[in-house]
Amino acid sequence: MIGRARRPGPTVRTRVREFGDGTERAREDRLATEEPLEIRMTWPGSPTQRVWVTMRTPGHDFELAAGYSCHEGLAGPVVGPAIRGIAYCTDDDLTPEQELNVVTVTLAGPTDIAHRHAGMSAGSSACGVCGKDSVTAVLESVRDARTAWTGPLPHPDVVRRLPTRLREGQAVFSRTGGVHAAGLFTADGDLLVVREDVGRHNAVDKVTGARLLAGDPPAEACLVVSGRAGFELVQKAVAAGVGSLVAVGAPTSLAVSLATEAGLAVFGFTREDRTVRYA
Amino acid sequence: MIGRARRPGPTVRTRVREFGDGTERAREDRLATEEPLEIRMTWPGSPTQRVWVTMRTPGHDFELAAGYSCHEGLAGPVVGPAIRGIAYCTDDDLTPEQELNVVTVTLAGPTDIAHRHAGMSAGSSACGVCGKDSVTAVLESVRDARTAWTGPLPHPDVVRRLPTRLREGQAVFSRTGGVHAAGLFTADGDLLVVREDVGRHNAVDKVTGARLLAGDPPAEACLVVSGRAGFELVQKAVAAGVGSLVAVGAPTSLAVSLATEAGLAVFGFTREDRTVRYA
Repeated sequence: MIGRARRPGPTVRTRVREFGDGTERAREDRLATEEPLEIRMTWPGSPTQRVWVTMRTPGHDFELAAGYSCHEGLAGPVVGPAIRGIAYCTDDDLTPEQELNVVTVTLAGPTDIAHRHAGMSAGSSACGVCGKDSVTAVLESVRDARTAWTGPLPHPDVVRRLPTRLREGQAVFSRTGGVHAAGLFTADGDLLVVREDVGRHNAVDKVTGARLLAGDPPAEACLVVSGRAGFELVQKAVAAGVGSLVAVGAPTSLAVSLATEAGLAVFGFTREDRTVRYA
Repeated sequence: MIGRARRPGPTVRTRVREFGDGTERAREDRLATEEPLEIRMTWPGSPTQRVWVTMRTPGHDFELAAGYSCHEGLAGPVVGPAIRGIAYCTDDDLTPEQELNVVTVTLAGPTDIAHRHAGMSAGSSACGVCGKDSVTAVLESVRDARTAWTGPLPHPDVVRRLPTRLREGQAVFSRTGGVHAAGLFTADGDLLVVREDVGRHNAVDKVTGARLLAGDPPAEACLVVSGRAGFELVQKAVAAGVGSLVAVGAPTSLAVSLATEAGLAVFGFTREDRTVRYA
């Protein structure tokens, strides 16, 4: 189609200057692509509403939108109406370049966007203004969850090897060193899906979204993330219904509080030779 | 005061189980504290409005609010009205625990909260839905900037040593391994201020806020961050008017685009033995 923007790739080339001890050289490098993605929602009888904007690595955008919707309790299968379709926006007021950065999620029925996002702008569904409120808000939002992992959890010996297996599944990272990864694993340590993004929340959204759009349950034994485990990542793991969250980095206090209340196992500082269980 | 909540510290103790190769032991660990902080604003003739909620490490909350306001162009000194005062909220509907998580910024005059945050929820002031729009939006917001660094930039030999100096200034990190740090340095590599937070954006907000509340300019030769350099961190560096941004990790494509347009030097992958200049 004439005038149609080319879909941006996950990395772009750039010229850099590298400085060592008394040395300097020009070379080519690759950067992880970062572009805004706006998520809109509509359902029968409702005009399209703007829900969220995130800076993300282009690619798997529909999965990102589906996973975000699920994690925030805005659309199924955990709570909320089912997703009928996801498409890039083709509004007349958008340039071709902008169209690839706006997706519209069509739902089977109404959802409560205003309640979820009233005044909140950290990408979190926590509505409280203290940690206890935030934990309560998340637990209430998943109380009616239809799916949650009830199978076995991975043995600590399996857990220790998961970050290495996650890295083996990463394609963009090995080129740029600038993206986070998230992966869903079975209790035996088999990789089901891995996704990468400049935003670690986005990588987790994409993993859950990939499962949903493939018709598979997002609730599995183990979600592995390449970075730390903060409150929002635990919130997504709880919403997706996974059995355990394995992080390469450290968890935070509120992350461990929520995980403990929700019955989610959290492993931090996970390497080949050790892992630490926090909740 | 009876019933007054104790101010949460930057770390909390917890019991963990550590698993090695065939070993298991219980021990004590420390977690970085994470709690929500809600920022509200008011000015003469205006009711108090909710502006933003972020998950942050308690401590230096007024600095976080001041730096955030500056970086988003909501309050001086770069653009917008001056800050007259910042205080914890004491609304009747807040519990003592909640009060320590809500701060109100009082401005000398009106600011455009709605414009800055219309539909945006990633903590970014970028209003566009493609990278070019986002870059343009940030550049326009700092066009009337009153302060920007015009002095010398650090020599690459100085740049390579800055992450080590930043780590020497970190107190929480050495205990938990779970927080990000940001520091402001002179062109000679002297540390002016360092702040830590579970959120790297918060750490940068606190650094700028610390300078503002001390009556010092936030525009200095060099802002150093412990993680990667995404679009939002470059946006804050541009808004603060610093001369260069030095990251331990990788920059993203949009971060380099904005830095190039704004005339900000960006160094990535910075270690003792090398650094890479991107913009």
